[in-house]
Amino acid sequence: MKQFVTTQRIETPGRSLTDFTHQVSDWVADGGVSQGLLTVFIRHTSASLLIQENAAPEVQDDLIAFFEKLAPEGPHYAHDSEGPDDMPAHLKSALTQTHLAIPVIDARLALGTWQGIYLFEHRRRPHRREVVLHLAGE
Amino acid sequence: MKQFVTTQRIETPGRSLTDFTHQVSDWVADGGVSQGLLTVFIRHTSASLLIQENAAPEVQDDLIAFFEKLAPEGPHYAHDSEGPDDMPAHLKSALTQTHLAIPVIDARLALGTWQGIYLFEHRRRPHRREVVLHLAGE
Amino acid sequence: MKQFVTTQRIETPGRSLTDFTHQVSDWVADGGVSQGLLTVFIRHTSASLLIQENAAPEVQDDLIAFFEKLAPEGPHYAHDSEGPDDMPAHLKSALTQTHLAIPVIDARLALGTWQGIYLFEHRRRPHRREVVLHLAGE
Repeated sequence: MKQFVTTQRIETPGRSLTDFTHQVSDWVADGGVSQGLLTVFIRHTSASLLIQENAAPEVQDDLIAFFEKLAPEGPHYAHDSEGPDDMPAHLKSALTQTHLAIPVIDARLALGTWQGIYLFEHRRRPHRREVVLHLAGE
Repeated sequence: MKQFVTTQRIETPGRSLTDFTHQVSDWVADGGVSQGLLTVFIRHTSASLLIQENAAPEVQDDLIAFFEKLAPEGPHYAHDSEGPDDMPAHLKSALTQTHLAIPVIDARLALGTWQGIYLFEHRRRPHRREVVLHLAGE
Repeated sequence: MKQFVTTQRIETPGRSLTDFTHQVSDWVADGGVSQGLLTVFIRHTSASLLIQENAAPEVQDDLIAFFEKLAPEGPHYAHDSEGPDDMPAHLKSALTQTHLAIPVIDARLALGTWQGIYLFEHRRRPHRREVVLHLAGE
């Protein structure tokens, strides 16, 4: 087995779900690995990762609204030095994923038909986020 | 290190937690790997994975009821074209796991005494679900 | 690629977030792996894992308070034979992580500047918890 690692940057427009499936699958396709395991790791605690349905855009709106309601901004947090959207961002990150792992079969991500890889930006303002991709296989 | 991959099907009776630990551990036992890492990936966004207590069945009832209350069906979702239980299913999937990873030691999954591997079906009706198992080790 | 596995014990003082980043990074530094993937697995269902901000201690207080409110103790659980804090502990575990995976680059964990590795103890009383570390790489 061999392995490959790369760090990629993703620009977000503020609070949103950004589909970066193609960015990942293109890199996997270049790796020359026909069978293996792909891991995505995000180097932040106020943005996170999610595999979600990629067909209906309303799903993303509902996801964002749900987490907004579950971990709303408010005056009830002890940690507010980085702004009112910072602590809710940490909570949403804790409830979702800091890393994902997806098998690679026949040189392709073994995602289901409707699965996409999303970066979940929790802060209000645009950010540049870093994800590390690790691929091990043959 | 060597690796093995398989796709398995799991039939669910609708909303439920299905323990498929034995299905996974049997496959690991067949792999001839004494030390390694097992990854389980589910190819869906309306069912998910969970490692949970396997001793008291009430734990599963409480888990299902809790997530039901946290992400209830209702008219407040933008995405409802696939039925009232579809968007709550995506939310519950986002809150739990699309993949799991478990170390293998002495040719066995290093699960704790009370840990079982569950498929969490979020839709009301029975489904056939696909999980991909990846095992890397020696 | 080669691999290493170890089981480590972590003492918790009851409900808390325990930063054990150094325990993990020390072990990784000893492994002689310059590039690879580190996986942490917790062998329990009433304590869990989290990567979170390690700078402001208030973040941890807010995290604990948030999950406390989301999955409170109460008489409404079917499973109460192990005490009132047991079922909430399973729910909080289901909402957070049983395993983490972090890439290793240049013989160091590729954590972001503000990311720490935490054990999230959900039971009231002190516990001795077991985590399994798996490192694969070159």
